[in-house]
Amino acid sequence: MSDRRTAILEAAATVIARRGVRGLRVEELAAEAGVSKALIYYHFEDRTGLLRRTLAFVNNRAERYTAEQAAAGQPATEAPAAPLRRLEQALLLELQDLPYVRENSTAWGELRASAVFDPELRGELALASVIWAREVADQLGEVRPTAPESALTASAERLTALLEGLSARWLSGILPLTDARTRMREAIGVEVAHLARLD
Amino acid sequence: MSDRRTAILEAAATVIARRGVRGLRVEELAAEAGVSKALIYYHFEDRTGLLRRTLAFVNNRAERYTAEQAAAGQPATEAPAAPLRRLEQALLLELQDLPYVRENSTAWGELRASAVFDPELRGELALASVIWAREVADQLGEVRPTAPESALTASAERLTALLEGLSARWLSGILPLTDARTRMREAIGVEVAHLARLD
Repeated sequence: MSDRRTAILEAAATVIARRGVRGLRVEELAAEAGVSKALIYYHFEDRTGLLRRTLAFVNNRAERYTAEQAAAGQPATEAPAAPLRRLEQALLLELQDLPYVRENSTAWGELRASAVFDPELRGELALASVIWAREVADQLGEVRPTAPESALTASAERLTALLEGLSARWLSGILPLTDARTRMREAIGVEVAHLARLD
Repeated sequence: MSDRRTAILEAAATVIARRGVRGLRVEELAAEAGVSKALIYYHFEDRTGLLRRTLAFVNNRAERYTAEQAAAGQPATEAPAAPLRRLEQALLLELQDLPYVRENSTAWGELRASAVFDPELRGELALASVIWAREVADQLGEVRPTAPESALTASAERLTALLEGLSARWLSGILPLTDARTRMREAIGVEVAHLARLD
């Protein structure tokens, strides 16, 4: 991916997190990215193309910081973290008061909310949700290897939907971050205990 | 509340569900409600006043249809529904493909999402969330009368945040309604089993 293409996507995430998807103007995006409007259209064709690529970019970036921080919390000389600890780390990374987490989560929430009014992003959003739930289901499977596959998937869908709900409350200033983190940690425990009963 | 004031609030919920909070224009609202722009400013002072009252209106309307449908499903000659059944009914009413549920949930999601960018509605939103969680905690307490108060509150906060997360996925076309309802019903069972272990 070219540097300027990446710069445009980074700027799109920033502008969406600042003003929302419906506040995204190509003029402001061009100024933020330090490129011409023409270059934006050259790389992304139209607004929908830009939003689709921004969605993928925001999603990949979340995966990257999740993986990096998990690795950082995990010195090579120590034994691998227990599966439950890894699962908690991965989900709680999304509930942190860091600028890039706020920006990424706000942009994701906005892109999803815009799909209520505009169906063009629905396919990408649905796919991203399924992939995310699949990853969480795999991690739950490491915690509870004998739980049925369908139960792991259902638990993962509940945990990711809850995380979106808690994240939306936190980002909109309704719920303190510490409360959101506590509820999420408890929910993981409740779901894991539920899966244990199905063994 | 005067008829025209109610008509304006109904129209505001409709326009917000159609175009979002940031797409709400007083001209369109006046046309939808069949009143003058001046009357809107007379009743609500400014945009913030209008949004605050719309939030309360949407919230009260959700309580009303919840109560009405619960009563309709409950003939006076029969024994009261079991507490668990009442809790399920109350929460699942928000996940129904009916025009007024869609409109109300979409407007609520939009008002909450707008608080990410504009702090003016945060107080009202936080209060509404606390009251809702309190009601669900009371219903959980009827299902599990010996569970600790703090555990009931935490379960209720998780269930209401999950419902918002599932509702957002459904309304944005990412998750089929039947899946959202299944996940919600399962989550109630998982939380009630969790509370039972704390007895």
